[in-house]
Amino acid sequence: MGKVRFEITMALDGYVAGPEQSEENPLGVGGEELHDWAVGLAAWRAPHGLEGGEVNESTPVVEESLANVGAGIMGRNMFGPTRGPWGDHPWQGWWGEDPPFHHPVFVLTHHAREPLEMKGGTTFIFVTDGIESAIAQARAAAGEKDVMVHGGGSVAQQSLSAGLVDEVQIHLVPVLLGAGVRLFEGLGDPPPQLEQVRSIAAPGVTHLTYRLMH
Amino acid sequence: MGKVRFEITMALDGYVAGPEQSEENPLGVGGEELHDWAVGLAAWRAPHGLEGGEVNESTPVVEESLANVGAGIMGRNMFGPTRGPWGDHPWQGWWGEDPPFHHPVFVLTHHAREPLEMKGGTTFIFVTDGIESAIAQARAAAGEKDVMVHGGGSVAQQSLSAGLVDEVQIHLVPVLLGAGVRLFEGLGDPPPQLEQVRSIAAPGVTHLTYRLMH
Repeated sequence: MGKVRFEITMALDGYVAGPEQSEENPLGVGGEELHDWAVGLAAWRAPHGLEGGEVNESTPVVEESLANVGAGIMGRNMFGPTRGPWGDHPWQGWWGEDPPFHHPVFVLTHHAREPLEMKGGTTFIFVTDGIESAIAQARAAAGEKDVMVHGGGSVAQQSLSAGLVDEVQIHLVPVLLGAGVRLFEGLGDPPPQLEQVRSIAAPGVTHLTYRLMH
Repeated sequence: MGKVRFEITMALDGYVAGPEQSEENPLGVGGEELHDWAVGLAAWRAPHGLEGGEVNESTPVVEESLANVGAGIMGRNMFGPTRGPWGDHPWQGWWGEDPPFHHPVFVLTHHAREPLEMKGGTTFIFVTDGIESAIAQARAAAGEKDVMVHGGGSVAQQSLSAGLVDEVQIHLVPVLLGAGVRLFEGLGDPPPQLEQVRSIAAPGVTHLTYRLMH
């Protein structure tokens, strides 16, 4: 059985999104800066349908992260900016017709909805009965491969505090956002225990991998 | 002229001390765990008057950090657990007769006090007119050497938000404290801008160095 992995880019002050998230600013004010390290990389651009890009110490980290993922889970706030019932013209995701996931993505929501099949192997499946169910369904869909917890912050916190995550990778960037959404908040008492697996320095980012002690 | 440097051990969730700091628990509940990476190192033990210890990837980081420091600054809460006027038998510091600093340490306080000369080259000088004055006095005392901002959290925040620090080193440990004192809080709007200098992986810690952009 594969691992349940979570990874996210985090500012040095712990924020994973800036304040005032919206359709125009999905990562909040200032949050775009978090991903500067990734968007110029060929290894990131290719799965997003973009050409060109550079190769550096982050390249093998990104390639390894994208490999061996059989399914994902995601919170509704990451899936889109709309709230409440889905309505007649429901939001189709941020990512256009061919999202960069290429695997089934289980979206946690309070509002039931039929699965949404996109191009390129991505299907969004809407789960209304909680994080444990979403991860169990994703594990079943992933088979021998890993399950990726795509985010956002709330789903990551729920997965971490429920002890459902095996490995966390933090892409730590030299940015102070000063406000926004923190990743490590409300993780229970005592909080989860971690073991450091590796740390890799790359231009504008340090890739930190931790194992969760169950 | 030397640099003004600040370094601190930080939990992955951003805390630099646990909750309920006291004389028994100077780093708060759970805070001792933050320094596990350091206390077994020969390079840390020697200046603290302790024998033995190991050598690993943290060794050159610690040696480099201790070298070339001509003066330090420190908040009263780091100097000791007492508050208010110093009284007739004033607190002499946590560190015994021969503190591990071996340079003049400027202690920020609201309560005037004569300098306190210890063994081994450490003198505590009490500064009542604020952080800029403390750093200016420390710079003058340090000459060509660096000034170290020893902490704690409040003095670090004041120095950072006033743009008085040139370089920050974070010893990031695989610990989640869940509560306590955060380093990166209230640093102004916009917060300081950082440039990543280097990241070094070592057992149980990642050493992260950033330059402050003035």
